[in-house]
Parts: sequence; structure tokens; C-alpha cells
Amino acid sequence: MNELRREPVTGRWIVTYLDRIPTVKDFKIESNEKKGEATCPFCWGKEDQTPPEILVHRKYGPPNSPGWTLRVVSNKFPALRIEGELNKEGVGVFDMMNGIGAHEVIIEAHEHNRDTADLSYAEAEQVIWAYVSRSVDLRRDKRFKYILIFKNYGKIAGASLEHGHSQLIALPIVPKRVQEELEGAATYFSYKERCVFCDMIREERDEKERIIYEDEKVIAFCPYVSRFPYEVWIMPKRHASDLTGLDRDTVPCVAKALRDTLLRIKKYLGDPAYNFIIHTSPINGHDREDYHWHIEIMPKLVKVAGFEWGSGFYINPVPPDIAAKNLLSVKLEETK
Amino acid sequence: MNELRREPVTGRWIVTYLDRIPTVKDFKIESNEKKGEATCPFCWGKEDQTPPEILVHRKYGPPNSPGWTLRVVSNKFPALRIEGELNKEGVGVFDMMNGIGAHEVIIEAHEHNRDTADLSYAEAEQVIWAYVSRSVDLRRDKRFKYILIFKNYGKIAGASLEHGHSQLIALPIVPKRVQEELEGAATYFSYKERCVFCDMIREERDEKERIIYEDEKVIAFCPYVSRFPYEVWIMPKRHASDLTGLDRDTVPCVAKALRDTLLRIKKYLGDPAYNFIIHTSPINGHDREDYHWHIEIMPKLVKVAGFEWGSGFYINPVPPDIAAKNLLSVKLEETK
Repeated sequence: MNELRREPVTGRWIVTYLDRIPTVKDFKIESNEKKGEATCPFCWGKEDQTPPEILVHRKYGPPNSPGWTLRVVSNKFPALRIEGELNKEGVGVFDMMNGIGAHEVIIEAHEHNRDTADLSYAEAEQVIWAYVSRSVDLRRDKRFKYILIFKNYGKIAGASLEHGHSQLIALPIVPKRVQEELEGAATYFSYKERCVFCDMIREERDEKERIIYEDEKVIAFCPYVSRFPYEVWIMPKRHASDLTGLDRDTVPCVAKALRDTLLRIKKYLGDPAYNFIIHTSPINGHDREDYHWHIEIMPKLVKVAGFEWGSGFYINPVPPDIAAKNLLSVKLEETK
Repeated sequence: MNELRREPVTGRWIVTYLDRIPTVKDFKIESNEKKGEATCPFCWGKEDQTPPEILVHRKYGPPNSPGWTLRVVSNKFPALRIEGELNKEGVGVFDMMNGIGAHEVIIEAHEHNRDTADLSYAEAEQVIWAYVSRSVDLRRDKRFKYILIFKNYGKIAGASLEHGHSQLIALPIVPKRVQEELEGAATYFSYKERCVFCDMIREERDEKERIIYEDEKVIAFCPYVSRFPYEVWIMPKRHASDLTGLDRDTVPCVAKALRDTLLRIKKYLGDPAYNFIIHTSPINGHDREDYHWHIEIMPKLVKVAGFEWGSGFYINPVPPDIAAKNLLSVKLEETK
């Protein structure tokens, strides 16, 4: 018998299979082998093929030349553009505005073949710091209301370039999905006086069944209501609504949790495509008691089809406790 | 400059590109060539490989044998099962219930290679009637609150079998996406005293830019706020909240609009994968003044990536007026 599970923040229902659990082979995971190094605009020596760097960590060399270890540049083909004034108008029953925003690319390492899963802890930390410092900078622009940071890894997850990179988009509005999450969390808070995410952490720690990483500051688990097989959420254990509030002690823990989780996924599932998204509060959100920033990692193992589109339900054939057990079975070598 | 457009029902924003519009070639559409006829459980002669037929149109032969032209059976691997009582309970901060529901498959033709786009008008009409009569039947079961009808065509749209079929899932709850649409439509109605979908039809008919089909009863258009390239919505022109209220005169028009639209998509884009979903009101919805049933067709030409997942925004590189013009350029032979 399958089970329907509901998540209290967004009210999303998930159908969890309790029989016929697929193995790794059943997912027919497509190879993410990287073949495009010769023409890659994100490798050393191709710095002139991207807009100039906004933020960089370098070992040597002048700006926009080889020698860097992490590089942030504007997206050459942005979904939204940074120049101009924000204009809004009505078009019949619809609303329209011009596409003001910032769209940046965080190139995580100079080597063509190294994904977040392959970084050292120190390199992964650099990536998290880049997210924080670009967010802090863009928050000053009064036109923006939300900063969305995400990664598409692999073609079927929407990556158009192979070279490991994440993206940041600053938006002139708080997007619908974020609004829904904020409202759900606020409703929960209004009748419990507690953060729903803090309650989730408490529950995961009590049950211990689905945790795949834990240290003093950070926890990672396959949530009880996982939309996708092998979905993992990473959260700071202390309540914090915003990524930009991250302190020096927590950044290495977030980096380690993210790196280790992605490496477990890569090794157990055979390098599948995935998306991860940083869920954080809007720019003028102050310190919210009711919202808790976190990272959601979604391996792309199943197709989203008509049922999901029509209902907002998700069918997950791998119960999260099994997913956690499988991910934990991976041996990670010690890395610094 | 790109444009942000907002749809008044769900509040969804779409980023529409106004420059660099991709051509059909740019989408790199994968072939949906059908190779699995020999092992297909939906072809004539394989009736014993599916559960027995619930509804059938036949030219000859006894039940569950060849000779049929349309066949409805239970899904052999259902997401939800029809047997048992509905039980609900809380699990910490989460809610849980058992997977009660019905999951049926509408096999649209006996030939392995004929999709909805290839049906005659009479055959397409049979399909629409099957949707209506299965819905009418399942509405009587008091455990169900919503009936979702959809189609996945092609592997990347989530189809696990090649043989043309659509699906029906009866659910014990009104799903989140439907609830959102209902709430958005109700809010619009509460301050305008008009159905938002009727207003959309009025606007599309005024502008005439995006209509790809119109007859006395039904209209099909590429909506001003299209999430996906070549998205098409089909709507009855007279206000009606529920698919099951469809009358004898309108069914042939819906069938024709659906068949012709899918044929235009197939011919113009080269047989891409797609999903379509019937959006209709919940079972105990009576006749709602504020909701309007319709079909949404979404060709799968672009990947849904981190940005879409994180924001609920969609980036659509083909403005809907261009999509409509291109779809209308297809010559359809007269079919009966």
C-alpha cells in the first residue's frame, strides 16, 4: 500500500511507494561525462569569453586571466538585465514589467571536470562565501526583492554548460514559490509560536532514521516528505532566516555538508544530474522568527509528468529512510 | 529587453524573451519513434496483460479480446489503489494518509503508432467521451474529491509506454495546484464579479494575435502568459466549471480543437514530447461561477531547471504570438 504524506510548509502531498522500491539500475541514469573542454568558456585561458569578473579568488595573474580558483561573472545571456529602471504596467487582465535583475554565474573551480562533489572542503567553503558576499552586495540595490541561488548539474537538470557552476539571480519581486513557503511557515508559527523548520530538525534528530550528515552547526537529511528519490535538505541547526547572516564558524560546516552530500549522491547513484536551490528569506525580511534558510538538493532520477504538473503531488518511489541508508553506505575518504 | 508577465489566476510570473527567439532546430527535439510494438501490452491481442476493461468501444469480439477501438483499464501499477477505507493520521509535524484512489488508463486507439494527433475527429471524440463518462462514474464514489485527467506523450514527458494513452487519477483530496487555481479565480471573481477565464477569452478574441483554433463552441490559443514555448490552452467559450457538464454539441468541438492543435504541434515541431492536463473543478464544486474548465497543452522543448524550481517563474524563449503564427502556418488536410 502506498502512503500519502503532507509537508506542513507548502502543504504539498507526496505519494511514497512502500513496495517495489527501485534500485540504482532501474533509474537508467544518463552519463554526465564531460566532453566539451576544448570549447568551454569557463576554463583557464578563456576569460575573454565571459563578461569581466565581479569576484575572484586567484593564486596568481592579473584580473580576467588564468590563475584563479573561483570566479564570479555576469551571465552572458541573462534572463534579466541589470540596467534600467523598473517599469510596471497592466495589460488587460495581466501584469507586465520589464526584465530588470542581475544574473551571475559562480564558476566553482578552474578545472573543467570538477563538480561541487569533487571539491576539497576549503574550495567548497570558497563557493559558500561567494554566495554570501554576492548576496550581501546585491541586497544594496533597492530595485531587488529576492536573491535566488541555485545549481543545475547535468543536461537533464537544465545545465547548458558542463563546467561546474552555480547561478545567482536577483529579482525585482519575491517569487511565488518563495511566497508560498513564507506564508506556510508564517501560518505554522502563528498557531505554534515555533519555527516549522526547527520542529522538523527536532523530529529528524529524534527519529535518527533519515540523517546523513550532522555536526555542531549543520544537519543534512532525506526529508520525511521527499518529493524526489534521494532528495536531501541541508539546514543550519540554529535558527536563522537568511543566508547572509552566516557566520565564520558555520560556513565550513555548510560547505562540508554540501560537499559530502553531493559526493554521496555521485558515488551511490553514479553521477546523476541534479539541482540544488538555496531557500532564504527575501531581502527586506529582517530576522524572521518563522522562516529558516536551507538548501534543497534534488537529484534528477525520475521525470516530472502530467500528474505532477496537474496536481502538485509528487510520486516518490524511494522512501526517504531507505535513501538515507543507501547514501550512508558510501565510504568517503577523508579530505581537507 | 526581456519582459516579465504575470498571469492573474495563479500569480505566476513568466520571463518572455523578446530577442533571440529559437527556431525549431535550436530545441534539439528527440525522436519519439516507436519501437516497442512487439512487447506492447496495449496492442490488440495483449488484452490479458492489462486488468479487464472498464469501458470499451468495439467493432467486434467479446470483452478483453481484439476488435476494440478505445479501451479503458485500471493501471496495473497504480500510484493509488481503489480498495479500502481512507485513513488519516498525524506523524509529528506531518500528515499522512493511505493511498486510496483510482488510477485508470485510456488507450486511445488499438494501433501502436497512432497518437491523439493522428486520430480522426470521430476517434478523438470517443476519447473525450471516455474522459467524461469515467469522470461521471467515479464522482459517485464518496471517497474522492478530485479527478485529474492528463496525458504524457514521449519519454521525456514521463510516458513509460509508447502506445498512445491518457490517464485518469481520482484523488481523496483536492490537490494543491488545483486549490491554488481555484483560490486565484475566486479572488478575481470577488472583486470583478466576472470569471477570469471568460475575461481571458475576451481578451484573446479582441487581440486575435494568439488564437490557433476557434469555432462556435471552443477556442484554442497560445496564452499571453505562456510558461513554455508553444503552450496551448483549449477552452469552451461558454462558461462551464466542470468537464462532466459537457454537452453533445460541444464534445465534437473540443475533440477537433485538441486533435488539430496536437497535429499542428507534431507537424511544426517534429513530434515533440508533451503533457496535457484537463483543469476542471473539484467533485463537490457544483456549478462555480468563478472557475472555467480547460485543457493545457505543454510541449516539452526546454528543461525545467533550478531557477524554475526555486522561484515558480518560467523562462519562455518563444513569445506566444510567434508560437501561434508558427503553429498556424501548418497545413492540415481535411479529416473526418
